[in-house]
Amino acid sequence: MHALARARHGNPLLILLVAVPAVFVTEHLAPDEHTALFVLSVLSIVPLEALLSHATESVAAKTGDTIGGLLNATLGNLTELVIALTALRAGMFNLVKASIAGAIVTNSLFMLGMSLLLGGLRYREQTFNVSMARLQGGLLFLATVALIVPSAIGDIDRPGTSQTVHDLSIGLSVLLLLAYVLGLVFSLGTHRQFFANAARDAAAHEEEQHLWSVGVALPVLGVITVLVALVSEIFVESVQHAAASFGMTPAFVGFIVVAIVGAAAEMMAAFKAARKNRLDMSVGIALGSSSQIALFVAPVLVLLSLVIAPTAMDLTFWPGAVVMVLVSTLTVLMATNSGRSAWYLGVLLLVVYATFALTLYVLPPAGMSP
Amino acid sequence: MHALARARHGNPLLILLVAVPAVFVTEHLAPDEHTALFVLSVLSIVPLEALLSHATESVAAKTGDTIGGLLNATLGNLTELVIALTALRAGMFNLVKASIAGAIVTNSLFMLGMSLLLGGLRYREQTFNVSMARLQGGLLFLATVALIVPSAIGDIDRPGTSQTVHDLSIGLSVLLLLAYVLGLVFSLGTHRQFFANAARDAAAHEEEQHLWSVGVALPVLGVITVLVALVSEIFVESVQHAAASFGMTPAFVGFIVVAIVGAAAEMMAAFKAARKNRLDMSVGIALGSSSQIALFVAPVLVLLSLVIAPTAMDLTFWPGAVVMVLVSTLTVLMATNSGRSAWYLGVLLLVVYATFALTLYVLPPAGMSP
Amino acid sequence: MHALARARHGNPLLILLVAVPAVFVTEHLAPDEHTALFVLSVLSIVPLEALLSHATESVAAKTGDTIGGLLNATLGNLTELVIALTALRAGMFNLVKASIAGAIVTNSLFMLGMSLLLGGLRYREQTFNVSMARLQGGLLFLATVALIVPSAIGDIDRPGTSQTVHDLSIGLSVLLLLAYVLGLVFSLGTHRQFFANAARDAAAHEEEQHLWSVGVALPVLGVITVLVALVSEIFVESVQHAAASFGMTPAFVGFIVVAIVGAAAEMMAAFKAARKNRLDMSVGIALGSSSQIALFVAPVLVLLSLVIAPTAMDLTFWPGAVVMVLVSTLTVLMATNSGRSAWYLGVLLLVVYATFALTLYVLPPAGMSP
Repeated sequence: MHALARARHGNPLLILLVAVPAVFVTEHLAPDEHTALFVLSVLSIVPLEALLSHATESVAAKTGDTIGGLLNATLGNLTELVIALTALRAGMFNLVKASIAGAIVTNSLFMLGMSLLLGGLRYREQTFNVSMARLQGGLLFLATVALIVPSAIGDIDRPGTSQTVHDLSIGLSVLLLLAYVLGLVFSLGTHRQFFANAARDAAAHEEEQHLWSVGVALPVLGVITVLVALVSEIFVESVQHAAASFGMTPAFVGFIVVAIVGAAAEMMAAFKAARKNRLDMSVGIALGSSSQIALFVAPVLVLLSLVIAPTAMDLTFWPGAVVMVLVSTLTVLMATNSGRSAWYLGVLLLVVYATFALTLYVLPPAGMSP
Repeated sequence: MHALARARHGNPLLILLVAVPAVFVTEHLAPDEHTALFVLSVLSIVPLEALLSHATESVAAKTGDTIGGLLNATLGNLTELVIALTALRAGMFNLVKASIAGAIVTNSLFMLGMSLLLGGLRYREQTFNVSMARLQGGLLFLATVALIVPSAIGDIDRPGTSQTVHDLSIGLSVLLLLAYVLGLVFSLGTHRQFFANAARDAAAHEEEQHLWSVGVALPVLGVITVLVALVSEIFVESVQHAAASFGMTPAFVGFIVVAIVGAAAEMMAAFKAARKNRLDMSVGIALGSSSQIALFVAPVLVLLSLVIAPTAMDLTFWPGAVVMVLVSTLTVLMATNSGRSAWYLGVLLLVVYATFALTLYVLPPAGMSP
Repeated sequence: MHALARARHGNPLLILLVAVPAVFVTEHLAPDEHTALFVLSVLSIVPLEALLSHATESVAAKTGDTIGGLLNATLGNLTELVIALTALRAGMFNLVKASIAGAIVTNSLFMLGMSLLLGGLRYREQTFNVSMARLQGGLLFLATVALIVPSAIGDIDRPGTSQTVHDLSIGLSVLLLLAYVLGLVFSLGTHRQFFANAARDAAAHEEEQHLWSVGVALPVLGVITVLVALVSEIFVESVQHAAASFGMTPAFVGFIVVAIVGAAAEMMAAFKAARKNRLDMSVGIALGSSSQIALFVAPVLVLLSLVIAPTAMDLTFWPGAVVMVLVSTLTVLMATNSGRSAWYLGVLLLVVYATFALTLYVLPPAGMSP
């Protein structure tokens, strides 16, 4: 608990940890209080995510560059993965797919936009490494295209294609995971020095945070993952009921609510870096976690659905999702193309995000309506 | 009239002012001569626009940077606004929406393309400030995405959605206007120096033009606005009839004819700057006036339709318009990404514009057919 | 044959020339052995292409910069053109259109991706002239937009539009050819020095290859073109049968198989340049040959269809093709925007290409199904 207290010192979010026991008690005593359960589960997931990423970083720092980088990369989207797995087991495929596309859109527009706004309110003009941003932006664009464009090419509505769509989805997932593994070989293996700067930044960041020893971090990692899984179950159960009572459509819930909750810890890190005028880190987190959703989380969910879900989940997205994901990644590329930022650039990214959110709230896409 | 004579000296267009009395006389004597009325009203609007922008600049120059900038920004698209308002009052929503999307496409492809071509025919290679162009291009992309992409996301064709579509359109309009106001705070307030170069260019441009005193400019501004409004009424009435007799579809009229007529004065300024090897100014006018259509003209028209139109106008665009606007803004970004230009770049932008115009002329989109 | 032996020395592909007599013999003895004929015709076309481009370069080198450039530019895609003409004469318009769109996608993603991968496996990091790449990328984007976007704008499905679609296609073709001719005026005329660097690179490349004298090159050019035309006939006849027996859809055949076979010689040149760390040349070949398909091959096919095909071919593409072509050219722009490359960038381009190929293989688009 000493380590926890120190960690809390660095992150005021951890006070929210009191919501964790509260959500379990409420679930036990009043399982139908969906709105309360929804609010409490969101309040629980956020600090658990913060602890999870702290524990991951602590282990990563002790295991050397390669394994550490691997851990960070693989566990970085653990919360998204656990939430999505819970929804997957319940067979809520539309929610899972909306949250995959929504995570890319939210990380690109909201996480980056809010970083640029928060940074820009403190600094008149901020600059970042434009060549690195273009490389990461290019990777993000390629990753999202490989994930999302097949839905726009194939004739998914043809009768009698459901088996074919599943075969295609498994093939696409294998391709995406192959690209992910080769990406790890690239960034942790052959071209490690290339990413050295970013790693040094992250290292400096970790130092400030009083890392835990492996003896503390590993058990914490295990316990927190179980807690996140348990709370996710309550979250996924309650979110649809609560959404209905707030007048939200399932598309809005998946795209916006689940995506923001799932990436809360990364957002905090990106915002904090922007406030410290380290935009390279903010851009790296926003673009990197979006890429990882496309190359790792999405295909893993498809392949795991073969094992844990009632039926197999496919990788087809409705046309509106294809448009939003493509436009979001293009938008990020445009916004980071000059290597300079001021607060208004953040405002515009947030306005685009708000128009998407408003549209999903008011006019849910066909097939995603209640 | 002395001021006018001097202004005419600088702008040979003003000889066209003789068309203004001619159009009113024709309207009185031969109200069914639609083709003559159409031609005369176009010939009248062009010089009136030139006077209008000269008067605006004269007032702006006298009122200091902030208010002057505000005036220039807000009155810059006054002609487009007045023409669209006339069509709005007549309930011709398809024409208004086509002219909104068409103004973005025309300013991006035709105004910029013709500037690059005219400049390139005089100078072997022209350069412009690539960082400024990227910033303006990024803003334009974000603005058009916020305006146009919601039409591609929401399920607009669902039965019983007309009330919801109107609510959504009003919400989107408020968001766009908020972005516009924050953009003014940014460019005229917190980051005025950032745009100082461009302003100095504009100032140099004004100087050459023998600005009017406020005592002349303000009354001219009022009188000309009324004249533009009166001529616009004749233009909007006659354009559809004349179009039919020329074999033009309403989509072509809104997208191409109204858009070119509405932006004639800005085009003249952009072309002139390009011929003087000041491409920064041409790029700024083309990208800036496109952004302003998306962030200011379009939402103002939606909100005013609540007051002056028979029913409220919404902000939904047909799929072809979404594609054209997105592709046009992407095209401009690509074309200005290298900071260098030669005549062939202008040719290619004009070829893209011509393929769009030809398609609209020959194959009008569904829902826009006569 | 001495010249041929020397050429073979530089290009091990030429051993494949033994397939040329083999394919004619097989065609004569066993005209129904479609799979064998397909394999032999592919094996024949590849070395014939290599000879063709060598002969073209030899003639071009002797005829001075302007005419040489003209020859290179016009004959560069001769194989694609001959194959497509054969399919055109047989009235297989879907195959022709799929191969046009497929050539752009294949040259952008596969040719460039494989070049970056092969180059990156030998060199840790490769750089190329980013300003040239952006210019070429901009031209490619504009050319493909002019070719492909009209299909997404016009209301092609309206009843009774087939005559109108043909008129439109002829108009678009004339516009594209005009842009092509002006492009030649630009690159070989007014702005020749601008492209001087690239030309010098090509010249260096030619020198190594022991160019033929005009007395050898011209007859070779004629004979080989006739041979390519004869083999193409066998290829086009057999490809559909062979595809069916391999389980390939016609969309896959047109998009992937024909596109790769048609550009094999250019691919060899691009890969070879990348292995020699001359990425500027690889990027130039990939982007240049894609642009040429859009501006030259496609409109020429439409206009020739008026003469040689049973009915006129139009220029409408199915929505999936529009998406793939736009996304591919955007992808190339993103991938070449930083001017730096390492092997993983190539992998990602190939992954995107593989997802497209897999989708077309498994889920053929409507209207392209068998």
